[in-house]
Amino acid sequence: MLIRERVNKLQQLMKEKGIDAYIIPSSDAHQSEYVAPHWTGRKWITGFTGSAGTAVITLKSGNGLWTDGRYFIQAEKQLEGSTIDLFKMGQPSVPTISKWLKDNLDENSTIGFDGKVISKSFFDNLDKELNEKCIKYNLDNDLIDALWKDRDPIPMGEFYSLDVKYSGKSRLDKIQEVKEYLKESGSTHYVLSSLDDIAWLFNIRGDDVPCNPVVISYAVVSNNEVVLFVDSKKLTKQMKAELENDSIIIKEYTDLQNYLVKLNKDCIITYDPMKTNMWIVNSLGSDIKTKEALNVTTKLKAVKNDIELQNMKNSHIRDGVAMVRFLHWLDTHLGKEKITEITVADKLEEFRSKGENFKGLSFTTIAGYKDHAAMMHYSATKDTAYELEKEGMILIDSGGQYLDGTTDITRTIVLGNLTAEEKRDFTLVLKGVINLSIAKFLHGATGANLDVLARGPLWKYGIDYKCGTGHGVGFFLNVHEGPHGFRQSNVPTVLEAGMNITNEPGVYKEGKHGIRTENILVVRDDETTESGRFMNFETITFCPISLDGIDVELLTSEERAWLNNYHKDVYVKLSKYLDEDERQWLRYQTRAI
Amino acid sequence: MLIRERVNKLQQLMKEKGIDAYIIPSSDAHQSEYVAPHWTGRKWITGFTGSAGTAVITLKSGNGLWTDGRYFIQAEKQLEGSTIDLFKMGQPSVPTISKWLKDNLDENSTIGFDGKVISKSFFDNLDKELNEKCIKYNLDNDLIDALWKDRDPIPMGEFYSLDVKYSGKSRLDKIQEVKEYLKESGSTHYVLSSLDDIAWLFNIRGDDVPCNPVVISYAVVSNNEVVLFVDSKKLTKQMKAELENDSIIIKEYTDLQNYLVKLNKDCIITYDPMKTNMWIVNSLGSDIKTKEALNVTTKLKAVKNDIELQNMKNSHIRDGVAMVRFLHWLDTHLGKEKITEITVADKLEEFRSKGENFKGLSFTTIAGYKDHAAMMHYSATKDTAYELEKEGMILIDSGGQYLDGTTDITRTIVLGNLTAEEKRDFTLVLKGVINLSIAKFLHGATGANLDVLARGPLWKYGIDYKCGTGHGVGFFLNVHEGPHGFRQSNVPTVLEAGMNITNEPGVYKEGKHGIRTENILVVRDDETTESGRFMNFETITFCPISLDGIDVELLTSEERAWLNNYHKDVYVKLSKYLDEDERQWLRYQTRAI
Repeated sequence: MLIRERVNKLQQLMKEKGIDAYIIPSSDAHQSEYVAPHWTGRKWITGFTGSAGTAVITLKSGNGLWTDGRYFIQAEKQLEGSTIDLFKMGQPSVPTISKWLKDNLDENSTIGFDGKVISKSFFDNLDKELNEKCIKYNLDNDLIDALWKDRDPIPMGEFYSLDVKYSGKSRLDKIQEVKEYLKESGSTHYVLSSLDDIAWLFNIRGDDVPCNPVVISYAVVSNNEVVLFVDSKKLTKQMKAELENDSIIIKEYTDLQNYLVKLNKDCIITYDPMKTNMWIVNSLGSDIKTKEALNVTTKLKAVKNDIELQNMKNSHIRDGVAMVRFLHWLDTHLGKEKITEITVADKLEEFRSKGENFKGLSFTTIAGYKDHAAMMHYSATKDTAYELEKEGMILIDSGGQYLDGTTDITRTIVLGNLTAEEKRDFTLVLKGVINLSIAKFLHGATGANLDVLARGPLWKYGIDYKCGTGHGVGFFLNVHEGPHGFRQSNVPTVLEAGMNITNEPGVYKEGKHGIRTENILVVRDDETTESGRFMNFETITFCPISLDGIDVELLTSEERAWLNNYHKDVYVKLSKYLDEDERQWLRYQTRAI
Repeated sequence: MLIRERVNKLQQLMKEKGIDAYIIPSSDAHQSEYVAPHWTGRKWITGFTGSAGTAVITLKSGNGLWTDGRYFIQAEKQLEGSTIDLFKMGQPSVPTISKWLKDNLDENSTIGFDGKVISKSFFDNLDKELNEKCIKYNLDNDLIDALWKDRDPIPMGEFYSLDVKYSGKSRLDKIQEVKEYLKESGSTHYVLSSLDDIAWLFNIRGDDVPCNPVVISYAVVSNNEVVLFVDSKKLTKQMKAELENDSIIIKEYTDLQNYLVKLNKDCIITYDPMKTNMWIVNSLGSDIKTKEALNVTTKLKAVKNDIELQNMKNSHIRDGVAMVRFLHWLDTHLGKEKITEITVADKLEEFRSKGENFKGLSFTTIAGYKDHAAMMHYSATKDTAYELEKEGMILIDSGGQYLDGTTDITRTIVLGNLTAEEKRDFTLVLKGVINLSIAKFLHGATGANLDVLARGPLWKYGIDYKCGTGHGVGFFLNVHEGPHGFRQSNVPTVLEAGMNITNEPGVYKEGKHGIRTENILVVRDDETTESGRFMNFETITFCPISLDGIDVELLTSEERAWLNNYHKDVYVKLSKYLDEDERQWLRYQTRAI
């Protein structure tokens, strides 16, 4: 069925149900960024395959897809001929979804959506913007489900326990921290919906979402009991025994609503409005008190403990070895056999999979050659994949899931001679990476205070990238993790010792080239002086940065010194795991400039 | 009367009135930063002379003064022996006023204050923090007034009109903009209390507050009428005729409450909770709808129009000439006559006062020699003033009020040989100034995004300054003006073309030295590229920076080039207004390094 037909059928169904506008976000019932195929309804209805974007289909006012800067180029291509207009979020004069609905819907219109995939905060924003228009809401209709014949079921895979030698802290200790928070905040119950929070809290991991080792589940923590809502088919005997041994009550995934409905009126429920869907919120009796706050588990898991930090460093060295072996292979095989964007990704996965503790990729590898790299989150298909030649650059953004950590690394590999502009852009990106890597800052700073360090060298040349500079990374969990980040907009979370965060400025020139260099940083204590507590970053990603891309004239002596030291470190940490050819190759790639 | 006696008497009065804690802020009835002597009650009761700080006197829990990093050293000295403890705001583990009251007051206690000097937002914060403690409030008792026998009256000076050749926009045009905002925002009335907003809107200036050319007044703007509430004694015939000619209704200053009480129930009143006192808010009937928002006049006046910008540049050259003539005098007279921190300030004022359009100082000159300079806002008295010698540094932060602009400049003058540490600190401050001056940034950035550019070079050496890096400056108005600023904490206001802002990093080492270099920047459009609209800064302050303070080895070649270009500009712009001796001196001071 063509996208146009799907949209037509949805509109017919909307007419029957008396719905004027229907909203389909990209999330699942847990407000996940990456979702199981069951919840890819937005992709099904629009044809747009990016990880983030919300579709709005209306009866009379046209259709729209809202997505962010990472996907502008990709979405434009994929929406061609679909009757769905692209709205570039954050660009001047582009309305938000709520504003657009306000401007385009008649008074007394009805907006429909599946309450399970819309968060409380999304709904609140919508309702606030539209409150003068007497809009009605229909929250209980999953219209996509009615149309989508070959829809995948909700995943039913088994899950397992993550040993404390990896997690560094037992589930009972973590649960105790949440209980203490409950007491302090004056609440009786915590409702958790976000899958990575639940996986972290219970030290469990599964295979429900591609690249995200989470388990489809809900959880409620109160002072009296801790309940994990999960389909019993997913539960091995061993896992069940282990959880019950820790006094965790197990109920069916679908039992959450019943459980919430029966809660006593004296309960005070805390939930995260960004992570909790309307179906849950509406399950709470109107006489029950609620508090809205960022999940405390999100704050706790962002600060990695010492054992996690050591594990992360180990897995990053293993990941760096895989990267170097792959890069050596690419360098020695290019021109001798057919290598495409797809074979590149496959070969890299092959090298990674040989590493100890490897459990899969942390996201679908982005391998974009030449102008494909200008699409920040490009994903090659058989139809689009370029064959690599000895010219231009290929951007490879990839990562692994290991029992002892999650990796996320981008290198832009120079395959031949570059133009002066390409070389300049490559060097500016590197300057941004270095500038942020060497930052020393007073405790209290957020990623909004430091973002300019990476972006500034590009801004000097009138270049910006339409995304943040960095995000937190889970510990053998989701590759994107909050609540901190490097970006221009306000970040309420202070950078604390033990947090990890990516450092990934880039240049994206549509139809020309894309360059990104990405390392993971760990926030550490530096010195404490009369002025206060100072922090710095430790780079834990080890892989050479293409020297052929660098215009040395553009680097300051401090930047050159950083690069040479970094490359020295890369060689020292990785060389012992390589064979002689690879080691020779790495020595040359990490030579001082 | 000693401070201890004053506090004792206040406590007796509190007992009589049944008040357990009494709050005395530093502001007037208009939430001004700088106030007329009438409203310096906090200074009277504590002995602390800084411009910002709030005192809390209690019956049973001790007394406190809360002030910010600019005043830590000064307040510590001035509070000695007063029974009032210093609370260093923003330092780790120092509670806020509301938190401290919450922790120290019993349930059912009564907090008292003069409702005219407490803002709505201050009250809201207090009330929110204390809401579990069943606190009662007594808002109608100005207890300080009952004790303070020789208190100054409210200023009664005449005021005058600022010609449109200076302001660049007529009052009718400005009022029209506010009326349009009212319409857009769905309000009927704007209540304005902040004196600089009123002076800007009506193009009036006066002498009511030292260094701040404002007029004690309130104003109400509605679609039907515009009312200025001002004491009729302040009104010249000419001013009255001019305002009435513009259809502005004039009522007595004390009539505001009557006017508000009589407002129709259908009115929707907008006011700025940061700028509006509780006496006004309580005057509004409980059935009247209110909206709280940053004053629109604050946003409008922050963006200077083209005529204001040209005027500002002219007044800054005049101010630079006064600075250079003063510096030349200091250089040629030091060691030959007695020069103290006080005579320095007087002499500088003398040079400034010779300039065209000069109307007074924009704030009390800070002239701090040696360790005195470590007090950010030091003010010399006969008892404290050091005599200058040919050694160390003197920090001079000063500014003028001109009909065509307000200036604010700091130079730290090297009088003799410096230690290596002093020279390094001086150079780091300069690096911060330059780093921010040369920034090119995407439109949308705020001062919180850019603050690190000035602070970073100091952070590298474990040094921080406990204040923002910069603030907006009024146009022949208050030297501190919002809503933008350079600081680490969130700034909601984007930097727009036409805004001005100071650039003033510093080093403050208690008992050792203080260094600050301050220029005013104007935000301008740079280029617009595929990535968006880029902005930059133009420095409009012209005065040499002591070359004797600079360790050239610490400067990058880009920083050196900036300094040499800046000094070239200083010479070109100022030299023609100097006599031959001064010109020779300036040529040497601005030599390339």
